[in-house]
Order: sequence, then structure tokens, then C-alpha cells
Amino acid sequence: MKRITFLLITIAAAAGLVGFTATASRHVPQESSPVYVTEIPAGYRDWKLVSVAHEAGNLNDIRAILGNEIAIDAYRAGKPFPEGSIVMRIAWRHVPSEENNKILGREQSFVAGEAPPWYLQFMVKDSKKYAATGGWGYAEFDKDGKPGPEASMKQCFPCHQAIKDRDFVFTRYTP
Amino acid sequence: MKRITFLLITIAAAAGLVGFTATASRHVPQESSPVYVTEIPAGYRDWKLVSVAHEAGNLNDIRAILGNEIAIDAYRAGKPFPEGSIVMRIAWRHVPSEENNKILGREQSFVAGEAPPWYLQFMVKDSKKYAATGGWGYAEFDKDGKPGPEASMKQCFPCHQAIKDRDFVFTRYTP
Repeated sequence: MKRITFLLITIAAAAGLVGFTATASRHVPQESSPVYVTEIPAGYRDWKLVSVAHEAGNLNDIRAILGNEIAIDAYRAGKPFPEGSIVMRIAWRHVPSEENNKILGREQSFVAGEAPPWYLQFMVKDSKKYAATGGWGYAEFDKDGKPGPEASMKQCFPCHQAIKDRDFVFTRYTP
Repeated sequence: MKRITFLLITIAAAAGLVGFTATASRHVPQESSPVYVTEIPAGYRDWKLVSVAHEAGNLNDIRAILGNEIAIDAYRAGKPFPEGSIVMRIAWRHVPSEENNKILGREQSFVAGEAPPWYLQFMVKDSKKYAATGGWGYAEFDKDGKPGPEASMKQCFPCHQAIKDRDFVFTRYTP
């Protein structure tokens, strides 16, 4: 009897995290919805430009923010993002261009270098599917198409939540 | 007689630069071709992204480089730019984003601000029309669509000439 009890406890402990997750799934519906985008949306590199940005500090990247047709139309019309909107950004290392600086005779030119591990990020609007994270699903991929570490992905929504007033989207469209 | 001679010399001197230009136009055909693009190519804001860059120093801007379909196809195929290729860039003031920095808790975020006077620049490939400037016509426009000062436009080709090996195009395509 003791052996059986011990075995049951061991199995229960091993299954702990899964058990907890399953319980949460059953009782808190919004926690059960998938919060991450698992596939790179097709054709993103052909999308129109929303704007550009430079993150200094540890990131030290330069980035382009693009949107699919639905997102761009909403941006330009100044209207809410409809279902199916996708806003994405590509980040590259922010590197000095020796070539440009030599020609210009000044140390002032920075260009897009290699892809950092946080190369691609997407936010996809699907109010039902991503109800747990404000109606947007988030994802990060490296240059090999590998999704970012979950610890990193988990940081998307809490940070974007701060910009809830603008439907969680940081980047403004610059004509 | 002396007065007439003096007058003629004065007029000749005053007309000097124009006279020189006119002479050059008549005798050196490539100098007579228009080197500037006079109209903003339609639809450029919908074009695909080539890359991004940041010019520090006096310019202190952040920029997106876009290409029309012909230019993008050539870039992606690694082939020479065919006739009709247009490469353009939009520059915005490189400004810190107080909004982003506050949320991120770090002073690291720079975004696209107002349009500087050198807002739009284009280079249009037309080997015949722009024979005098390496087969590319150049132009700069401010946010009101006003062409840049001629002194500024004149600087395009001499600077781009330094990158003749890559058909006068500075920006490399970054996937």
C-alpha cells in the first residue's frame, strides 16, 4: 500500500506542471488560448513600411516596422486595427558603414548589419484566438525561423500592455 | 570704342557661367541631358523595403530605403539594375521616444520624427536621359514636394560616383 502511494505521489509530482496547466486551462478560459504565433506569416518581407526605429543600449539594433495590407490601411486611415492585422518588425545589428564613412569623409553612417537573435517579431490580431493577450498574438523568430525562447516571448504582452490605449501597438505610422 | 569694349567685357563676364554651360551643352552632349528628376515618382510610399540606415552627425536622421518593383527584383536576384529601376529613401529626424523609454525604463529608443528638408531622395535609372550622371537621375524633395536646392542636388552624383563599382547605389539589400 505504501509503495503504491509513493508511486502515485511520484507520478503526480512529475506531472505537476502539466497538471497545473491543464487545471488552469479548464478553469480560466483566457489562459487556455494560444498566446504565441507559431509560424512566420508568409510574404512579410514584401509588406509596406510603417516606420523605422533604432534601439540603442544592449539591443543596439536598427529596425524596420512593416504591416500587412489590413494593418497599413488601418494605420493610414487612423482607424482601429481590424481582425487579421499583422504588424511586424525586422531588426538588424546597428553597425557603422566603413564604406560610406570613407566616401563621406565623416564617421556618421550606420547601416543594417547581421540579424540578431531577435531578428523577427510579429503581432497578429485575432481577438478570439489571442483573447488572453489583448487580442494580439505575439512571436519572435531568429534568422533560421526558430521561435524565440519562451521567456522572451512571455515579455511581449506585459510590455505592450502599457500601450493599451493605442491597441497595444507601439509604432506610429510615419508618412 | 574703349567704352563699348568695356561694356562687352562686362556683359561677357556677367554671362560667364551661363555662357560656359551653354557652350558645354552644345559641344558635349552628355552635359546637356537632364541630370535631375523633377517629379516625385508615384506610389513610392508603397514600395518594398531595401534596408534602413541612420546618419548621425549634422544630419542626425533615420531612414528607410525603398525600391520599385524593378529595383527590388534586381536587388534580390543580385543582378544589375535594369532601366526603370528607382531606388529612394525617406529620412526622418532621429528622435528619442519618451513614450517608449518610459515604458521600457531605459533611455534607448529612437524613432522617426519630423521630416527634415532632405526628406525624400530618388535615383532613377535611365541610361540615355541621365547619361551625364552615370545613367541615374537624382532628386531631392522636401515634405511639401519642393525640389531641393540645386547646390544640394549637384552633390548627389559626385558622391555616388565613388560607389561606381556597385552601379552608384550605396544601399545594400538586407533580407
